[in-house]
Amino acid sequence: MTEERYKRGKAQLGKMGGGSVDAMLDNLRDLSPELARLTVEFPYGDVVSRPGLDLRSRQIATVAALTALGNAPVQLRAHIDMALNVGCTRDEIGEVIIQMAVYAGFPAALNGMAAAKEIFRIRDEKGLK
Amino acid sequence: MTEERYKRGKAQLGKMGGGSVDAMLDNLRDLSPELARLTVEFPYGDVVSRPGLDLRSRQIATVAALTALGNAPVQLRAHIDMALNVGCTRDEIGEVIIQMAVYAGFPAALNGMAAAKEIFRIRDEKGLK
Amino acid sequence: MTEERYKRGKAQLGKMGGGSVDAMLDNLRDLSPELARLTVEFPYGDVVSRPGLDLRSRQIATVAALTALGNAPVQLRAHIDMALNVGCTRDEIGEVIIQMAVYAGFPAALNGMAAAKEIFRIRDEKGLK
Amino acid sequence: MTEERYKRGKAQLGKMGGGSVDAMLDNLRDLSPELARLTVEFPYGDVVSRPGLDLRSRQIATVAALTALGNAPVQLRAHIDMALNVGCTRDEIGEVIIQMAVYAGFPAALNGMAAAKEIFRIRDEKGLK
Amino acid sequence: MTEERYKRGKAQLGKMGGGSVDAMLDNLRDLSPELARLTVEFPYGDVVSRPGLDLRSRQIATVAALTALGNAPVQLRAHIDMALNVGCTRDEIGEVIIQMAVYAGFPAALNGMAAAKEIFRIRDEKGLK
Amino acid sequence: MTEERYKRGKAQLGKMGGGSVDAMLDNLRDLSPELARLTVEFPYGDVVSRPGLDLRSRQIATVAALTALGNAPVQLRAHIDMALNVGCTRDEIGEVIIQMAVYAGFPAALNGMAAAKEIFRIRDEKGLK
Repeated sequence: MTEERYKRGKAQLGKMGGGSVDAMLDNLRDLSPELARLTVEFPYGDVVSRPGLDLRSRQIATVAALTALGNAPVQLRAHIDMALNVGCTRDEIGEVIIQMAVYAGFPAALNGMAAAKEIFRIRDEKGLK
Repeated sequence: MTEERYKRGKAQLGKMGGGSVDAMLDNLRDLSPELARLTVEFPYGDVVSRPGLDLRSRQIATVAALTALGNAPVQLRAHIDMALNVGCTRDEIGEVIIQMAVYAGFPAALNGMAAAKEIFRIRDEKGLK
Repeated sequence: MTEERYKRGKAQLGKMGGGSVDAMLDNLRDLSPELARLTVEFPYGDVVSRPGLDLRSRQIATVAALTALGNAPVQLRAHIDMALNVGCTRDEIGEVIIQMAVYAGFPAALNGMAAAKEIFRIRDEKGLK
Repeated sequence: MTEERYKRGKAQLGKMGGGSVDAMLDNLRDLSPELARLTVEFPYGDVVSRPGLDLRSRQIATVAALTALGNAPVQLRAHIDMALNVGCTRDEIGEVIIQMAVYAGFPAALNGMAAAKEIFRIRDEKGLK
Repeated sequence: MTEERYKRGKAQLGKMGGGSVDAMLDNLRDLSPELARLTVEFPYGDVVSRPGLDLRSRQIATVAALTALGNAPVQLRAHIDMALNVGCTRDEIGEVIIQMAVYAGFPAALNGMAAAKEIFRIRDEKGLK
Repeated sequence: MTEERYKRGKAQLGKMGGGSVDAMLDNLRDLSPELARLTVEFPYGDVVSRPGLDLRSRQIATVAALTALGNAPVQLRAHIDMALNVGCTRDEIGEVIIQMAVYAGFPAALNGMAAAKEIFRIRDEKGLK
């Protein structure tokens, strides 16, 4: 039942410290409860919670893709935050973003690094690594 | 000196079993020796050879980005091949590609999986895992 | 004569309640009167005014495309506004945007929904449906 | 339960005459049964089967988005075919594609029209409108 | 009158040796005479024929953009051909494409160079520089 | 040695009046000195400083590509500024951007023109042409 996927998605978000995603979804909920629910169910309940790839690698993949695509800065910041929550170091995030200069060009990498900088600053304030 | 970067890039490609990249570069060399040289020097000599991120994670990042961008199938296939050479399993590659359905849409994921299928078939013929 | 296309384009914009496009073009006119004129003539005078597809369907196509491309938020908001002016309901716009999660990924859909939310809020203030 | 979504997705594909999608999924099934299943469950079982937007409008949105993105020709052809199955006319598909010249440029529109031409030819052979 | 734009567009295409565009338009004409006509009228009759920028610079801009976007190989090849017709050298085209490695990534540049290679080969056969 | 490339890159940036790039790199340096250094070395030390294409044509190519890609407004503004520094006129920049309406759609061109407008305003304040 779909209820089960929703619970699995919420649990997955919890495991990833996805507070910024939760905040964004709360914000969305009054406008489009359906998209808010689907965002928990499919990305987190169906996909990211799958076995077969560790969470750290999953977040590396997502940070790489969003840096390369370059048109979703809010989501990129949220995923850099979650990548750090699940065990990536700041240096590793930096390396993933630098590597995108090769595959998507320097502007994409520079904008990705600006997103990382913002998240690192916020985490510094919170005393997070 | 630039010679050093070129050597480092070639060594890096060797470490990644980048035979398909070498073939592509040989093919390019008579037309644009400069782009062929830069492709060894910058991506492999300057970036992918950097410490700070393991090769398996680097290839996960590249496969994710190229699947998401969706407009470089030749390079995506070469990087899936190199990802398997440096320690990713076929299942892990599959998971990275499936995850791109979330961040770049199903067509990107389906085309990425078709690229993986082709590489898996070629590796089966060669008896590679 | 080109004058005719311009008039047809302006009439078409009027029919679509394209006030936000007009405001943007006024803003552009002192810098690039040519691009301002071409924007009336080609999109509205040549294309959107063509018979063969109803305006509501045309705006569904445009909202879908701009949500999927994800790099023109100003234009996306203007076209959501015009879609509502020519007969789309807010729920229909929401469905088009949710559907883009399938074809262009969740970040594109979430950013599209944020654009819709902003336009719905502005229209609430004006007492528009 | 997920079984229900799968059935709903298959039923939805049936309603849309999605034979080309079924063929593609059969082809995919031996490589990645998970992605094949998710492609039935999420796009068709969760999203396109939602009430609130008629199928004809849904296919206009998808044809517009895939033409604009321009990097999924196989999926674009399949969705043009399904658009015709659910009530779009060939002329309407042509109008949607022409309109993408405005929002994504002429190359995207020209390649979209080439995809439509191919589907129209195949349907002529089958005696379909 | 629109007839005038069409004539101006055809004349512009003639000036650019746009034989490959003409061939593509002939091919398109039976399917979508409207898109064929608009492709002559707007890009060539309205835009590229404008004073204020020399044709060689215009083609450098187009080759750069299509290489960077990476999803219109047919059009990229046609525009490389026309760039050579209006005074760009092969080396200059090569430089524009190499530069795109910086702004859109190496895969885009490598695929652009493959397009150039194909056009250079065809021109060699015709004895064109 | 890499030091040489860095010097060549800095000299190249100096030649292009790349003050806005320098400011951006200073800003980046404390977070990622590596990406800051690579941005001087590869784009400016390795590529843009190459002979074979004049600087004015190089900047036309970059402005065209960044306008078409549409997801790097900060970098687009910096490159419009440098294009004017190396001999492009404001009218020529305007023509390049208008032309992108043909190849990447009107939203890309309109957003490119807004970037140009901002740079022209800043240069007016500084008394630059």
